[in-house]
Amino acid sequence: MKKIMLLVAAGFIFSCQNQPSPPTGSTALSSEEKIDSTNIKQFFNSALTDGKSYEWLRDLTQNVGGRLSGSPEAQKAVEWGEKVMKEVGLDSVWLQPVMVPHWVRGEKEEAHYTVNGQKKDVPVCALGFSIATPTNGITAEVIEVKGLDEAVALGDKMKGKIIFFNQGFDQTLINTFQAYGGCVGQRVFGAAVCGKYGAAGVIVRSMTNSIDDYPHTGTMSYRDLPEEQYIPAAAISSRAAENLSADLKANPNLKFYFKQSCENLPDAPSFNVVGQITGTETPEKVIVVGGHLDSWDLGDGAHDDGTGVVQSLEVAYLFKKNNIKPKNTLRVVFFMNEENGTRGAKEYARLAKVNKEIHVGGLESDAGGHTPRGFSIDANTSNTELVKSWKKLLAPYGLHDLMKGGSGADISPLKDDSVTLVGYRPDSQRYFDYHHTSRDTFDKVNKRELELGSASMSSLIYLMDKYLYNNTPIKP
Amino acid sequence: MKKIMLLVAAGFIFSCQNQPSPPTGSTALSSEEKIDSTNIKQFFNSALTDGKSYEWLRDLTQNVGGRLSGSPEAQKAVEWGEKVMKEVGLDSVWLQPVMVPHWVRGEKEEAHYTVNGQKKDVPVCALGFSIATPTNGITAEVIEVKGLDEAVALGDKMKGKIIFFNQGFDQTLINTFQAYGGCVGQRVFGAAVCGKYGAAGVIVRSMTNSIDDYPHTGTMSYRDLPEEQYIPAAAISSRAAENLSADLKANPNLKFYFKQSCENLPDAPSFNVVGQITGTETPEKVIVVGGHLDSWDLGDGAHDDGTGVVQSLEVAYLFKKNNIKPKNTLRVVFFMNEENGTRGAKEYARLAKVNKEIHVGGLESDAGGHTPRGFSIDANTSNTELVKSWKKLLAPYGLHDLMKGGSGADISPLKDDSVTLVGYRPDSQRYFDYHHTSRDTFDKVNKRELELGSASMSSLIYLMDKYLYNNTPIKP
Repeated sequence: MKKIMLLVAAGFIFSCQNQPSPPTGSTALSSEEKIDSTNIKQFFNSALTDGKSYEWLRDLTQNVGGRLSGSPEAQKAVEWGEKVMKEVGLDSVWLQPVMVPHWVRGEKEEAHYTVNGQKKDVPVCALGFSIATPTNGITAEVIEVKGLDEAVALGDKMKGKIIFFNQGFDQTLINTFQAYGGCVGQRVFGAAVCGKYGAAGVIVRSMTNSIDDYPHTGTMSYRDLPEEQYIPAAAISSRAAENLSADLKANPNLKFYFKQSCENLPDAPSFNVVGQITGTETPEKVIVVGGHLDSWDLGDGAHDDGTGVVQSLEVAYLFKKNNIKPKNTLRVVFFMNEENGTRGAKEYARLAKVNKEIHVGGLESDAGGHTPRGFSIDANTSNTELVKSWKKLLAPYGLHDLMKGGSGADISPLKDDSVTLVGYRPDSQRYFDYHHTSRDTFDKVNKRELELGSASMSSLIYLMDKYLYNNTPIKP
Repeated sequence: MKKIMLLVAAGFIFSCQNQPSPPTGSTALSSEEKIDSTNIKQFFNSALTDGKSYEWLRDLTQNVGGRLSGSPEAQKAVEWGEKVMKEVGLDSVWLQPVMVPHWVRGEKEEAHYTVNGQKKDVPVCALGFSIATPTNGITAEVIEVKGLDEAVALGDKMKGKIIFFNQGFDQTLINTFQAYGGCVGQRVFGAAVCGKYGAAGVIVRSMTNSIDDYPHTGTMSYRDLPEEQYIPAAAISSRAAENLSADLKANPNLKFYFKQSCENLPDAPSFNVVGQITGTETPEKVIVVGGHLDSWDLGDGAHDDGTGVVQSLEVAYLFKKNNIKPKNTLRVVFFMNEENGTRGAKEYARLAKVNKEIHVGGLESDAGGHTPRGFSIDANTSNTELVKSWKKLLAPYGLHDLMKGGSGADISPLKDDSVTLVGYRPDSQRYFDYHHTSRDTFDKVNKRELELGSASMSSLIYLMDKYLYNNTPIKP
């Protein structure tokens, strides 16, 4: 046996044996930090061996599926959320009523155009809040632009035309969310800008790094446009956008057709789902952790944001399982309507104010369920530095990125100088392959990556609970 | 327009805008480091906008496919490698002959057992180098063990039995390669240990974090066992292992059947594929970058190690494209036979010695094509510290893990106190979902993650070429 083990140890074929271990950094830790380090390790151990998030996500995505605000599926998701929160045994669970927009997609959209006698079908989907086309669809010539500025410069030339927004992601940005931020304006405001000048409609290149055949939906806004100037807005797949752009060069007068039957219905009743573990020392102070329960309708809302929902609940589960009692009240919120309105977030913040709740901190997971990278911190300077000082405890788990930045759409209405808001930041490379498409399904989520996220979030909440206790930095 | 942009900037719905940027760290950089930083940025920009690795990988995996040493596909891969190296326009490209083991799988394996009248089929595959079962297969009672120690303790009780190695991955290890290293010994040496005591055969739980239905093949060794004591060895899927273990508790005398017709043929001729850009200042000194061209036969060898192959060539491509001329000779090697013999690696190192080549450094990519995490360094203390000092240049690209560790099976035969060997370390979470299975296919590789790896490797090679110039640390 010894000989065998020696062979193994000698790296006979196992370069794997020589893989670097995460540094424990234990030599540099104070006695309090050693306790923290032990508790953090325990969060990771139990998430990776006894995590529930993956099966919760399977259930939510496969038995509820896509759950757009106002839909029967969204209501089913609310019931699902209440049920799983109760199963975890939180001290209290309740529903927070909120009226939400109710947009419906209607029949499957169609789009095509013909060049050189060849009809080309275009993968297309309506954008959320868009009006329908006339029943016969829209057929018009196309003007291609790269972003809103080029569109505005067209002015009255837009009249009767379909404006084709074809600004792609800046692929050189390492963080793909920055690339998204750099061009999503055309999706959101394209129709508002072009409706004003009498365009017939807008089609927008899908928001993705990938060249593929999946249209990406997402919200849009007519802003203050008079209703009679509303025009239909749709997204086409990135590959269709590339092809259309090439075809327009050779055939500038080609006519594009698209048809959609989406509709804005009256606001519908819905709910945030809320549950909490009451704090042992200052129960009146709240640390909130959440994701959004609603999703777009094309896929099953797995990475956006089923993962954030189940990770947030797993934080509470891991506290209970490991018998770690939060000093402040630890509240889990499944926010409703992040995708098209953030009404749930606004209502949650409004009620917090009305009820004079003291929010010490918040953590949101709405950037997908991929492998952990870090947290982005929206807090005053001293609390930002405090959170950054936890790096030595978090880096062994791949959480190196601790930097100032936004938290998330659902907790940012709580923003105040005294509140420490944090966004969980997993790796971003694959996120926009799936975002808002039919591909955002359970099979795209890796069990360990999801669980590592839950444990990362639990660790951060644990540190916030301990060191933001009086809402001011208390150095260990 | 201003109003629109303000709305966007105000984060109306775009928390994405507030995503943290990678720190450029430019304030803390010396003037030499600023040059380095610019060149590194250029590697990333061109990999992400004009990379060739993804299409090379598509071609290799889909038009050549799995390419086990000695197979016609391995020969096709050699021809493919020579062709793409020449297309990149390297200064010279050649083939390095090497004799390799030639094991063939034969017909598709079968395994099943019956409990309570119900026949259960078991996903199974032979291990590389294993002998066949008799034509009628093996049917025998099963003894389950967790690892080699438990097997050895059985001694003569093994006689006539099938020994079932069922030690699973330690899921609490963050780096999955460590979990692999912790239990792969049972796969490699199980048959050697049990053949000695007259066991009928061994079946091994697949090496993976995941519970699924895919058997994972891999190499095994009979070591110094006399040939008459050789017994067949196979892997069963992790789910089948869980089920069998449960069934054995209730039915300890159940009989397991498996059949395989694999065969060890005489060694076959093959090649390492080698190409280089001649150094401008010390062409006699070599920095080598490589991955292995062979793969297991069940899948298409995408993550293992098609990605390493195409990334290594992309390093040379990016140097040429950006007109960055290495001072030392930059050599790309597609090693043959890493999976079952490392004969190519040994032959490369032998020839380097015979030809009195001076190897300054080496970089190997053989841990999959996932998102970059860092490098593991096998070098003397001062060169290890030198590589670690590049962290400020590499961290903006997610390369935080720079630590002492192994490099890789193909370059480690070059080990010497004067040589700096480095292993590229992408994220490990998903790797063992695919490793050595039918699932290791092109669709599992993300284009950006692959390209970020190529750029990461190019950056490291650039720094090695510049600062290991005289094979001693030269601080900028």
